[in-house]
Amino acid sequence: MRKAAVVGTGMTKFGEMWDQSLRDLALEAGLAAVNDAAVHARDLEAIYVGNMSGGGFTSQEHVGALLADRLGLQVPAVRLEAACASGSVAFRNAYLAVASGRYDLVLVNGVEKMTDIKTDEASSVLMSAGDDEWESSIGLTFAGQYALLARAHMNKFGTTREQLAAVSVMNHKNAVGNKHAQFPFPVTLDAVMHAPLVADPLRLLDCSPITDGSAAVIIASENIAKRFASPVWILASEQGADTIALHDRASLTEMQSAKVAGKRAFGTAGLAQKDIDVAELHDCFSINEIMNLEDLGFCEKGRGGVFVEQGHVGLDGDLPVNTAGGLKAIGHPVGATGVRQIADLVRQLRGKAANQVKGAKTGLALNIGGAGATAVVNILSAEQG
Amino acid sequence: MRKAAVVGTGMTKFGEMWDQSLRDLALEAGLAAVNDAAVHARDLEAIYVGNMSGGGFTSQEHVGALLADRLGLQVPAVRLEAACASGSVAFRNAYLAVASGRYDLVLVNGVEKMTDIKTDEASSVLMSAGDDEWESSIGLTFAGQYALLARAHMNKFGTTREQLAAVSVMNHKNAVGNKHAQFPFPVTLDAVMHAPLVADPLRLLDCSPITDGSAAVIIASENIAKRFASPVWILASEQGADTIALHDRASLTEMQSAKVAGKRAFGTAGLAQKDIDVAELHDCFSINEIMNLEDLGFCEKGRGGVFVEQGHVGLDGDLPVNTAGGLKAIGHPVGATGVRQIADLVRQLRGKAANQVKGAKTGLALNIGGAGATAVVNILSAEQG
Repeated sequence: MRKAAVVGTGMTKFGEMWDQSLRDLALEAGLAAVNDAAVHARDLEAIYVGNMSGGGFTSQEHVGALLADRLGLQVPAVRLEAACASGSVAFRNAYLAVASGRYDLVLVNGVEKMTDIKTDEASSVLMSAGDDEWESSIGLTFAGQYALLARAHMNKFGTTREQLAAVSVMNHKNAVGNKHAQFPFPVTLDAVMHAPLVADPLRLLDCSPITDGSAAVIIASENIAKRFASPVWILASEQGADTIALHDRASLTEMQSAKVAGKRAFGTAGLAQKDIDVAELHDCFSINEIMNLEDLGFCEKGRGGVFVEQGHVGLDGDLPVNTAGGLKAIGHPVGATGVRQIADLVRQLRGKAANQVKGAKTGLALNIGGAGATAVVNILSAEQG
Repeated sequence: MRKAAVVGTGMTKFGEMWDQSLRDLALEAGLAAVNDAAVHARDLEAIYVGNMSGGGFTSQEHVGALLADRLGLQVPAVRLEAACASGSVAFRNAYLAVASGRYDLVLVNGVEKMTDIKTDEASSVLMSAGDDEWESSIGLTFAGQYALLARAHMNKFGTTREQLAAVSVMNHKNAVGNKHAQFPFPVTLDAVMHAPLVADPLRLLDCSPITDGSAAVIIASENIAKRFASPVWILASEQGADTIALHDRASLTEMQSAKVAGKRAFGTAGLAQKDIDVAELHDCFSINEIMNLEDLGFCEKGRGGVFVEQGHVGLDGDLPVNTAGGLKAIGHPVGATGVRQIADLVRQLRGKAANQVKGAKTGLALNIGGAGATAVVNILSAEQG
C-alpha cells in the first residue's frame, strides 16, 4: 500500500443553516478544502462523500454525483454510509483508493442537512442507524440506546452523573471562540446536571444536537504529498464492528468495534496510547466519550469517568480530547462529523489550532456509527512515520 | 495495483418477495456467494454493500453493519450509494480495497427491498436519485426523465417505437427459464407497442419493474485467487460522471458518464469493442440499452435502435446482451442490479450460463445511476490478461 497524507481541509459553520441547502454546504466545505490545499478543483480525480441520509433528511440520494456536479467536475463520485461514521468510512475508502495507486488526489466530503424536517422526524431518520426490526420500529431512540449504555456503565462501574456532566462541560469550554461551532459557549456542571431529562440518566446537555454542516479534506498520495505546504500523514485507518442491536451484545459497557479498530490502528501505526498527543472522540452522548477512552485503552475499563473528572482530557491534561468542542458543542451533522474530526486533528498537527496542544505531532480520531455497530479509528501524524 | 478476481457469486430470486425482509435477502445472496466460492464466511475480511435507499424503502440505513451482523461477522462493513449504480460502485471500491493490498477476500452485496411501501412512494424514493431542487420536487419522475431522453433520440436520429419495443422483447425472451427472474416469460412486439402509456413515448413494457432482491459476489486478490475453482479476473473497473439534472447537459442523446467510463475501461483493459464476447447493459428503460450501445462504441451514435433491430445483440448475434433477461425481465432492485450484472457475467465467463454464449471469454457490464449522472463499466475475463 502507498502512503498518503491530508493536504487540505475545510468546513462550513455548523448549526441551523437555514439559508444553505445540502448542496450549498457540501460545495462550501469542498471549495474551502481546495483553497486550503492550493489546488485547482479540476485536479481532483475522485470524490468520496460521507452522508448518512440525504434521502431521509432532504429527499436527495445520489449525493456524490450531486457534489461532483456542483463542483463542475465529471469525476467518479460516490457516497458512503455507516450511520454517524459515514464521514470516516468515506475518508477510509478514499485513503484505500489512493493507497491502491488508482488516484493521487481525492476529495472527501462529509455533509448532512438535518434541520429541514421536524425534530421528531429527524429522530426517526437517525434511528434508522439502529436495527429497524428489533429496535427502531418499537420506539427505541438514539438517546434511549445511549441511556441504556450509560445506566449499565453506572451500575457496573459506579460512574456518576457528575462524571457524565464533566464531559459536556469540557467540550463546551473547548468550543469557546470556535467560529464553526453551533454552541461556542461554556456550560456549568450545574446546568448539565439540571438540564431537562431526555432519556434517564441522559439530560439535554449530555446530547449532541441536530445540526447542518459539511467538512472536507483532500488526500494526496505519497507521490505528490510533499509538494504541499504541510502534509499530515495517515499512519493508520482501521474499522471495527459490533452487533447492530444492543440486545445481541455480550456487554453493554464496551464496544467491540472501537476496541478492535483501536487495536488494529495502533498495530498498523506501530504506536501505543502514550504516543497520542491529541484525540478526537465521539461524544454524541456524554457516556460515549467515557466509553471511547476505555475501549481505546487510554484508561482502564470502568475508569473513564474518573479519567475525565481528573482532568486528563482537558487542554492542559496529558491527552487533550476534542480541543475544538467535540460533537456536543461544535454540532453533529452526522455524515460530516467523521471528516470534521480529521479536519480538526489536522489543524492541531499543523500547529494551527485555536486551542493548540503544544508540540502535538500525532493524533487519533474515533468516529462511531449508530450505537457502536461501526467504529473507525484514524491515526495521523505531522511526520511521515 | 494488485490484480483481483471474482471467485464466487450468489443471488436471490428477484420479485415481490413479501416473505423476505431486506436483511433476509442480503443474507441469502451473501451465503449463496460464500457457498459458491467454497469459503467460510469467517474468511471474509470486509463487506461492501450496494444499496440505494434502505432508509427510504424500509427505514433502515447502516445496511453494511446490518449484513455483517446477520452473517455473524465483526468485519469492516460499509454501504455505498450512487443511485441505481450503487451495486457497481460497491463492487468497484471493494476491488480498489483489494487492489490496495489491504484485503485478500471481500464480499460485495447489492440489495434493495422496494415493495414494502406503495408504488407512488417508491417512485418518489427512486427520484431522489435525480436533482431534488430542480427536478424531483417539481414532479419529474424517472420514467419522465427517460421519456425525455427517448423523445430526443427519436427526434434527432429517427429511432422508432418498434426499435424501443425490440429491446424489451429481446430481454424478456432471454429471461425465459431464468429461475431468478421476476418476469421469466416472453412478450410480443405487439404487446409492448400497445402496453399502457407511462410517460410518452415509454409504455409499461419499456420500464423495468419495482423489485426486491439481492446479489452478491466475492472478490479475491491475485495472491489467493488461483486457489479457487474458476476465478474470473477484473481487467478494468472504471467510473464516469455526467450532470445530475438533465437541463445542464449539452446533449440529451448521450451520457458522458457512460462514454468516459467505457473509454477508460477499454483503455485500462487494453481491449477494443470487438474483444467483448458478451455484455450486460442497463435497460432500466428500453431507450437506455440503445444509448448504452452507442455510448460504449458498439455502434455509431444514433444507430442503436437499428443495431438492436438487426439482431446484433440477440443470443446468436455478434454481441449478445443481457443474456439472462436484463433489468426489464429479471427485475431491478436498484442497489442489487450492478452486482447482479457481475454475477450473470461471471456465469457466462465460467461457461455455466443457461443461455451460454459459446466460447465467451471476455465480458463487459455497464451500470447507470439515475439518468446517467453516474456510470460504471467493468470488464471481466476468464483469462488473467
